[in-house]
Amino acid sequence: MDVYNQKPCAVRQMIREGRLKKPTSGMCGGYAQGNLAVLPKEYAYDFLLFAQRNPKPCPILEVSELGSREFALTAAGSDIAKDIPLYRVYRDGVLQGEFEDVSEFWRDDLVSFLLGCSFSFEAPLLEAGIEIRHITENRNVPMYITNIACKSAGIFSGPTVVSMRPIPYEQVVKAVTITERLPQVHGTPIHIGDPAHIGIRDINTPDFGDAPVIKAGEVPVFWACGVTPQAVVMKVKPSFVITHSPGYMFITDIRNSDLLG
Amino acid sequence: MDVYNQKPCAVRQMIREGRLKKPTSGMCGGYAQGNLAVLPKEYAYDFLLFAQRNPKPCPILEVSELGSREFALTAAGSDIAKDIPLYRVYRDGVLQGEFEDVSEFWRDDLVSFLLGCSFSFEAPLLEAGIEIRHITENRNVPMYITNIACKSAGIFSGPTVVSMRPIPYEQVVKAVTITERLPQVHGTPIHIGDPAHIGIRDINTPDFGDAPVIKAGEVPVFWACGVTPQAVVMKVKPSFVITHSPGYMFITDIRNSDLLG
Repeated sequence: MDVYNQKPCAVRQMIREGRLKKPTSGMCGGYAQGNLAVLPKEYAYDFLLFAQRNPKPCPILEVSELGSREFALTAAGSDIAKDIPLYRVYRDGVLQGEFEDVSEFWRDDLVSFLLGCSFSFEAPLLEAGIEIRHITENRNVPMYITNIACKSAGIFSGPTVVSMRPIPYEQVVKAVTITERLPQVHGTPIHIGDPAHIGIRDINTPDFGDAPVIKAGEVPVFWACGVTPQAVVMKVKPSFVITHSPGYMFITDIRNSDLLG
Repeated sequence: MDVYNQKPCAVRQMIREGRLKKPTSGMCGGYAQGNLAVLPKEYAYDFLLFAQRNPKPCPILEVSELGSREFALTAAGSDIAKDIPLYRVYRDGVLQGEFEDVSEFWRDDLVSFLLGCSFSFEAPLLEAGIEIRHITENRNVPMYITNIACKSAGIFSGPTVVSMRPIPYEQVVKAVTITERLPQVHGTPIHIGDPAHIGIRDINTPDFGDAPVIKAGEVPVFWACGVTPQAVVMKVKPSFVITHSPGYMFITDIRNSDLLG
């Protein structure tokens, strides 16, 4: 089955019915996918303010209505509790397990946040002839905790997590200008070059994901990463949180090109 | 006194001490100025969500800490209650008056929102050789209520208000690309050309500001306007609101160039 060319609503329906249980990379080509964070309302203002103050690591695509299970603006008719293939549920910061359906956990006081995902900016980089090494190598992108503090908001604070892509020197400027056009999915790099400058001791030992393959003539380029808000939320240990399981994203009806300014 | 070349902290100090009581246009060249909206905490989540859903008319530069009178991130050491030359205070949607100092009205439950201002994108347009007609004519920019609905959030909803600048046909693309780089101050135009297409019946009769002067060979270009959130807030008639008085803005320590992606 060619899931790359399917419409998002059709793929969400398949996921909802339990007929598609894979990571969502490569599904619905051209459409934006997002990270999910579901929090009780008591945390929602602080989290929204944290995202407003840190738009590069926390680019918000949509915030649901209180208690609603639908992302009405980016995926009309969606069911947030069923349209992701695999979820994680946390209580007081402790993982309760992974679930294919979280409708049994839903509560009227929950607010769902959908955050932009780097898939949306890797597509135009690839189209521009820039190799994305971790895709070529079929690995996970390397991610690092930096010494760049996020601006805190209420109970939420923590360091910026970055993802790294090695880019040939002659394509670095192109990588900046292409991602500049996509502020809703992390935007421009936050650092180019020497990893030590942002507190990364060993580029070969990422904090998350797989070790990088950096070739001669390439420079490490760092973008703010969607793991940042998840790491920050986990640090606070809210009484209750639902997230997607890494790699299993929410597929929206928004085209990546709709994210342009 | 050459207020254009003064540092923002010095000018805020002069305003705070009552030694400068003029509209802030032309003060502290190169530094971003902002619109002020101060609301009780009970409205803050809905207003922040409204801004998140409508970033073009409501570009947030900063949200204060609860009860704080300082914009700590964009103007360290500032006093929100004294650093604007003229404020307006509303109760239940009714204007109570204009004040040079609102410290007597301050309450621990207030949250202050600073919203981007078109001054920040007019400067680079002028630098690029694009005439800003209302500046040339020493008039207020013409503003119109459109048929483009904002995305509602909680109690806040309403139409998008736009400002209009007539641009020669051969400079329209340049005006788009320059403002594309400034998403935090309204970004790209939301409409170019026929006013009727966005529900404007008579271009010569704006809803706010002064009538335009449009010359042969020019097309009307419309940008989302910072009057939108004020109009929306007033429609809701919150129990208590403080705003700046039109033209009397909050001057930040952020350079317009810092607003680039």
